[in-house]
Amino acid sequence: MAGVTTPALVAAVGEGGGLGLLGAGMMQPSAIEQAIAQTRALTRKPFGINLFIAPQPQADAAQVARMLAKLAPYCAELGLPPPEVPARCAPDFAAQFDAVLEARLPVFSFTFGLLDRARLAALHARGTFVIGTASCVAEAKLLAELGCDAVVAQGAETGGHRASFAVPFDEGQIGLFALLPQVAAAVEIPVIAAGSVMSGAQIAAALLLGASGVQLGSALLATPECGTSPAYKAALAQATDTATQVTRSFSGRPARGLRNRFMQEIGEADIPDYPIQNALTAPLRAAANAQGRAEFVSLWAGQGAALACAEPTAAVMSRLIEEFDALV
Amino acid sequence: MAGVTTPALVAAVGEGGGLGLLGAGMMQPSAIEQAIAQTRALTRKPFGINLFIAPQPQADAAQVARMLAKLAPYCAELGLPPPEVPARCAPDFAAQFDAVLEARLPVFSFTFGLLDRARLAALHARGTFVIGTASCVAEAKLLAELGCDAVVAQGAETGGHRASFAVPFDEGQIGLFALLPQVAAAVEIPVIAAGSVMSGAQIAAALLLGASGVQLGSALLATPECGTSPAYKAALAQATDTATQVTRSFSGRPARGLRNRFMQEIGEADIPDYPIQNALTAPLRAAANAQGRAEFVSLWAGQGAALACAEPTAAVMSRLIEEFDALV
Repeated sequence: MAGVTTPALVAAVGEGGGLGLLGAGMMQPSAIEQAIAQTRALTRKPFGINLFIAPQPQADAAQVARMLAKLAPYCAELGLPPPEVPARCAPDFAAQFDAVLEARLPVFSFTFGLLDRARLAALHARGTFVIGTASCVAEAKLLAELGCDAVVAQGAETGGHRASFAVPFDEGQIGLFALLPQVAAAVEIPVIAAGSVMSGAQIAAALLLGASGVQLGSALLATPECGTSPAYKAALAQATDTATQVTRSFSGRPARGLRNRFMQEIGEADIPDYPIQNALTAPLRAAANAQGRAEFVSLWAGQGAALACAEPTAAVMSRLIEEFDALV
Repeated sequence: MAGVTTPALVAAVGEGGGLGLLGAGMMQPSAIEQAIAQTRALTRKPFGINLFIAPQPQADAAQVARMLAKLAPYCAELGLPPPEVPARCAPDFAAQFDAVLEARLPVFSFTFGLLDRARLAALHARGTFVIGTASCVAEAKLLAELGCDAVVAQGAETGGHRASFAVPFDEGQIGLFALLPQVAAAVEIPVIAAGSVMSGAQIAAALLLGASGVQLGSALLATPECGTSPAYKAALAQATDTATQVTRSFSGRPARGLRNRFMQEIGEADIPDYPIQNALTAPLRAAANAQGRAEFVSLWAGQGAALACAEPTAAVMSRLIEEFDALV
């Protein structure tokens, strides 16, 4: 949910009975500090934050040049100057982490890899509950052995980017229905289910499958508090079960989103690694969001996105809790 | 489960409290008659049968020749003569169907497409309950509109071949956790969940997600009654959550199985369509099963295969029912 979790969304989830998580993976340290302050001004409920353990990509100058040439006509179509390689493709993780540590939030979650032991110890010394993210049993075991307090198990249904750090992406595409029982059997820490959790019945099902809790994503994308643009929300309203696909075209890392023109025209070949491609397409995506051109927006969404309700976050939260309570 | 459902397995499922289904898609009419008679000799419980609505492939003689050349070294490795194109690549559906109709079984299930209306009417006239198979909402709706009495919703977790007839295969790879609620909301007929149902807790979860029942596959593969070879069973005993992949290499149609040498060496390019490729690899697979060479066997298995128990079918059935009853 990096890029679309606003302080208003995080606060509303907390007020609604959940634990809001600020998706800060792509935010500069100063923006992280500001978002935490804004969220604290909106709620006294606890909330957490998520960062990316991003690998350092090998930059291939010729490949980047080919991609810039491919992107140029789309930039022109949106009235943008030709695309360029930015000085930095992603925020500095050490600086992001220091901003987070300073804020002493009660929950820290990370994805795309393993947090180093020194930083994990620093979080634990401050009493922070640390959650890792796994897309298969092997990753969940690594996170449990590292000393995480809980692990998110992301089914292949999940929208956006998944953890996918210990096995090749294609081998870790496991449906949540098969993944949860196997992860729950493999680790002793609590397992949090992620991947198209859209209803109270699904929450109850996830608990039966071995989860101790669930993480919402697509269920919140259509809320007014979410930072999804009107074009993104309009696309969500048209979603079907078969509307998503996994693509590297927007970010250089496999991510699930609603199929659109950009994904189909750029294809999957000759894409610079994450976060290079993500940086190259950032101006294009921002302009497309602003101009209402969903065909160029990375419309991250899970396979359950068709079940997303365009209602306030408070209504989503109370509906899920009521549906769950009625079953249990 | 075509190819590995024996009369003993079908009978044991029925005796255990389930409804056994004979996977007869690749059986000649005479073999169908024989298997039905054998099953009837083993049990007085009701059972059903499954056939394939197989598309007629376009044969590409040059492509077939290239594949025969690729397969020749593997045949030699197994001591077989060079591979050949058989006179027929699959049994005649009309003759298979007539054998089934004649047998007046209480349940008929089909996959890979839509049964024609005349045959559906013939089954209904004999009081047969007809089940179609869907891998997405669009397919489930087509099956409901056709007049099926129930629909199997196959998650992407499912082992072997999936229905995949109305949308391109890659678009219909929907995890069961996301698929079931959407199929259940879209059709009024009962929905049967398939895709790595391995435990009573998963059965209960499937019902919460919208199913009226479940279909077992991988849960029965390791039983002594199942026709899986010792090599196949040994491979299953080593399965992990990431051990399967979808491949066209064995049959020409995407199917999920345990990753092995054949899949990896043949790859996914330049494969003749189903059922041509299936016929070309049939002698190789049969010899590999007989010789205990799992690296050349199509080890169809779902993403939950690691949870399969090598115990008699009666034990699997009673365990699932006890686990389910303890929860409900």
